Amino acid sequence: MRVLITGGGGFLGQKLAHALVRRGQIRGRAITAMDLVDVVPPARVSADIPVETHARDISDPAALAESFRHKPDIVWHLAAVVSGAAEADMDLGYRVNLTGSWNIFEAARAAGNAPVLVYASSWAAHGGEEPQVIEDGVELNPQTSYGTQKVIGELLLNDYSRRGLLDGRGLRLPTVSIRPGKANLAASSFMSSIFRDTMEGRRSNCPVDRDFPVWHTAPRTVVANLIHAAEVPAGDFGANRNINLPGRTDTIGEMIDAMTRVFGPEAENRITWDPDPVIEAIVTGWRAHCKPGKGARLGFQADKDFADTVRWFIADDIAR
Amino acid sequence: MRVLITGGGGFLGQKLAHALVRRGQIRGRAITAMDLVDVVPPARVSADIPVETHARDISDPAALAESFRHKPDIVWHLAAVVSGAAEADMDLGYRVNLTGSWNIFEAARAAGNAPVLVYASSWAAHGGEEPQVIEDGVELNPQTSYGTQKVIGELLLNDYSRRGLLDGRGLRLPTVSIRPGKANLAASSFMSSIFRDTMEGRRSNCPVDRDFPVWHTAPRTVVANLIHAAEVPAGDFGANRNINLPGRTDTIGEMIDAMTRVFGPEAENRITWDPDPVIEAIVTGWRAHCKPGKGARLGFQADKDFADTVRWFIADDIAR
Repeated sequence: MRVLITGGGGFLGQKLAHALVRRGQIRGRAITAMDLVDVVPPARVSADIPVETHARDISDPAALAESFRHKPDIVWHLAAVVSGAAEADMDLGYRVNLTGSWNIFEAARAAGNAPVLVYASSWAAHGGEEPQVIEDGVELNPQTSYGTQKVIGELLLNDYSRRGLLDGRGLRLPTVSIRPGKANLAASSFMSSIFRDTMEGRRSNCPVDRDFPVWHTAPRTVVANLIHAAEVPAGDFGANRNINLPGRTDTIGEMIDAMTRVFGPEAENRITWDPDPVIEAIVTGWRAHCKPGKGARLGFQADKDFADTVRWFIADDIAR
Repeated sequence: MRVLITGGGGFLGQKLAHALVRRGQIRGRAITAMDLVDVVPPARVSADIPVETHARDISDPAALAESFRHKPDIVWHLAAVVSGAAEADMDLGYRVNLTGSWNIFEAARAAGNAPVLVYASSWAAHGGEEPQVIEDGVELNPQTSYGTQKVIGELLLNDYSRRGLLDGRGLRLPTVSIRPGKANLAASSFMSSIFRDTMEGRRSNCPVDRDFPVWHTAPRTVVANLIHAAEVPAGDFGANRNINLPGRTDTIGEMIDAMTRVFGPEAENRITWDPDPVIEAIVTGWRAHCKPGKGARLGFQADKDFADTVRWFIADDIAR
């Protein structure tokens, strides 16, 4: 199986690539080649199979066609301009998140082998007039350009799947926390940095209150679910290829308390609490509660405790 | 007020143009100029105000920019490749219905005057895993490329409205019956032709059974609702600019019986009943029942009796 990961240089793409190398197989067959694509050159991944890394912009169809020349069997499409950046630069967000995703689906169509295509949609798909507790089947009413672009990708994924041009599986990822690396322009960036940065010895600001609830999932869980998404039989998805991925709800305060239990009290003391109205306006529009019926039925994993997330972050990511 | 109608050469665009000319004002101010745009030159509309007609393809941004040079105050975006054609020619449908609508919204953005933009979405937005009776707030799961493209337009409309780039109002039109003119490649075409053609003395085939239910609306009602959509205060729409337009449910048999009551029995005798699996596959995926809560609250009109539709068709459209 040839596999392709867009956003292959991002933390999630890299974790997925390493997990696939460790696993060695997918859908019951050996992984024989891997291609990582990102707008900047992805870090190399050492493996016994050929791993190519390419700096390619998904908004450029010609560059992208190169990645589909070898007809990948499975594509994980993770590349995106994050929420805050897509809100600040409307043209950039639409070019990468809408046109870029459409380019991916068109490249898959042109390849002609109807690849399995796992699409990272986002919790930002939800908002506006939706109920406070999200269940399957609510009208998506995103209140950011990023969320809008992600939902448009879902609709394209579903139509291209219905036509048999690809075999799409769209996952609305909860906020992924704790992300390694640096803070970025995602409005949710602080939901990682208040843990990551403070455990690594730096100060970090929390722009919302302790009682702010978050629908979140751990990187390990997301990687497992991204792989599971490729394994689910196509027919199990029915007429809608896009699902709410399981996650869990904790308040910021509960998450901090879990960190303190695992790591000790010194990290929390490095958190500052200055409100940021721009970030608050975006994240308070998101929903914090979900009952992911179809996602659970299809066997996707939920997190059990944010303390696990802290332990996994310490084991997998922390700068030692 | 300068007004612009895309799809201004279609039967709905023409009826809307004539209704606006008769009305003379919109949103409390006089209509001072009208621009009709369509892929083929729209029929001229006589009026005391300047009416321009242009053959322009909305998938060509440069041509479209010309239509926005005068900064229209109100735009009705009706232009589309119909459902059957968008299903048969995937590239054409996506180019006009997705890229073309996006071009319209971008042209409105570039004009800089945040025009009121009434967008004709479609009942084809619904399908798949949705409940049999559509209420507000159900996840849109279209099962045609046309429906997919219409929903993508809704999402763009909402995001551009949220950003204040335009003032969008999206209406999911029930099947419009009885349409004048010729049969087209819309899968719903027969839902007009079995009435229109038979009353005009021609034979017409019905590809579904008499007990097939249809969620429909009359051209007069749709035109009134398209105008009303421009009049509703922006704030009344809330965070979701797209609504299910009121309509009514009748079976094909009930509609035929209403025609017979108004017109006499000779038309029905011209209907043939040969099944068409391609059309049936599309239209049986649509929903036939709806409770349009927000649309009714915002003052949009519903049809009371298909017999009215037959009378209006005879008065407005029938070849005499």
